[in-house]
Amino acid sequence: MKTTRGGKVYLVGAGPGAADLLTLRAARVLAEADVVFHDALVGPEVLELAARAERFAVGKRCGKHSTAQRFINKRLVDAARAHRVVVRLKGGDPMLFGRAQEEIDALRAAGIEVEIVPGVTAALAAAADVAVSLTRRGLSRNVVFVTPRVGEGEPASDWASAAARADTAAIYMGAGDAAAITAALLARGKPPGLAVAVVENASLADSRRWFTTLGALPELAAAGFRGPVVLLLGEVFADAAGREAACAELLRAAAAERRRA
Amino acid sequence: MKTTRGGKVYLVGAGPGAADLLTLRAARVLAEADVVFHDALVGPEVLELAARAERFAVGKRCGKHSTAQRFINKRLVDAARAHRVVVRLKGGDPMLFGRAQEEIDALRAAGIEVEIVPGVTAALAAAADVAVSLTRRGLSRNVVFVTPRVGEGEPASDWASAAARADTAAIYMGAGDAAAITAALLARGKPPGLAVAVVENASLADSRRWFTTLGALPELAAAGFRGPVVLLLGEVFADAAGREAACAELLRAAAAERRRA
Repeated sequence: MKTTRGGKVYLVGAGPGAADLLTLRAARVLAEADVVFHDALVGPEVLELAARAERFAVGKRCGKHSTAQRFINKRLVDAARAHRVVVRLKGGDPMLFGRAQEEIDALRAAGIEVEIVPGVTAALAAAADVAVSLTRRGLSRNVVFVTPRVGEGEPASDWASAAARADTAAIYMGAGDAAAITAALLARGKPPGLAVAVVENASLADSRRWFTTLGALPELAAAGFRGPVVLLLGEVFADAAGREAACAELLRAAAAERRRA
Repeated sequence: MKTTRGGKVYLVGAGPGAADLLTLRAARVLAEADVVFHDALVGPEVLELAARAERFAVGKRCGKHSTAQRFINKRLVDAARAHRVVVRLKGGDPMLFGRAQEEIDALRAAGIEVEIVPGVTAALAAAADVAVSLTRRGLSRNVVFVTPRVGEGEPASDWASAAARADTAAIYMGAGDAAAITAALLARGKPPGLAVAVVENASLADSRRWFTTLGALPELAAAGFRGPVVLLLGEVFADAAGREAACAELLRAAAAERRRA
């Protein structure tokens, strides 16, 4: 018989996708978990880290409410009353576009202990994938993380002003709104030639990336994406395509030289 | 005798401080490393993960150039020519305030393969420490990561406009400039009552945190800090101090109830 033991809920960042981009702490907490409630986008290899846990998909997919937030909160509270280690596993980092506050507040109001385990957020994995630093001396000294998405009934956000004012911008959950994004940023004075890097499925084996411009972004997006996309905008990406080609050429030459030696 | 084997350089995020907040991939690469070049702020427990590597501190501390960047680049190139696995270990994430681009470009120009392993950046660990989500529906839909610091000879950056325009701002390497930060943000229309959370040594056992306001920030900072500090500004922190007190009270009550049961 299960007794009330004052279980604890861990809000854990699942990272950008690749299972080995979870933190050591996240992996340990998952291994100890009795129950895991996870977003729909968290992959099977990550979930395998929670070997002994009951697992439930409760997450949203592309902004849709697969499970109402209030119902998720209630399930977390109920689980913490029945189990010792409860994990709420969220894509990326829990504190960035994760609706964590609603869950933290509901758990605390029920007198349940909460611990947050931070994670690698998608934009940083995307920057790693394209090998372009989001900051660069003399060129970019700040980075904004924005989403044009708002929840049902939520007031419109001025994401475009925030994005236009920062040196580098990472846009989450924006691939479906490419035309609107381009229009909003052009209207705020960003040039059509502004460099954009588009990364789909950041950190995963089937990751794809494109280098384009703000003006041409809707064209690229119209071709469609197969997975979650991060849009990275800023001057730091201006020569990224050229750098990548030059790098591939240099690596080929170095390999050929080693073969000759 | 060492031969040229075309070694690879990994730019690895060491995370915010706690050794178990490295990613699984970072831990694996460190375990395989022949040589590690690390920032001065990377702690001993993290470095222990590189059990078989020669380790060299090359990093900067609080914006000072302990080792000139050009010299670091050269050491990385030389190491990659003599070893199989070379790690450049950077606090937080390599692509955020890490001068990664200069190292990536130098390595690529030398025909050396580079891989970036992303990490948990300090602001996300700080948000976890204070249990306040950086985004919240209806209140904050974007977050900017800025630093008021610029390198020697680098043009001044308009960090304050970027910070003032975003819903939530995380200021890195700013604790020493609190008075200037407050003045710059007040001048850009932010109210003196704007909520600020200050987190020192995020994620570490000796982490400290304070809840204050933009107007009172210089007063707090004048007391001095003992470690790296992240300043978090935004409405999402407005009730953070009250929430924390209420939560402690609720947890005490729940514990007392369990003892009675």
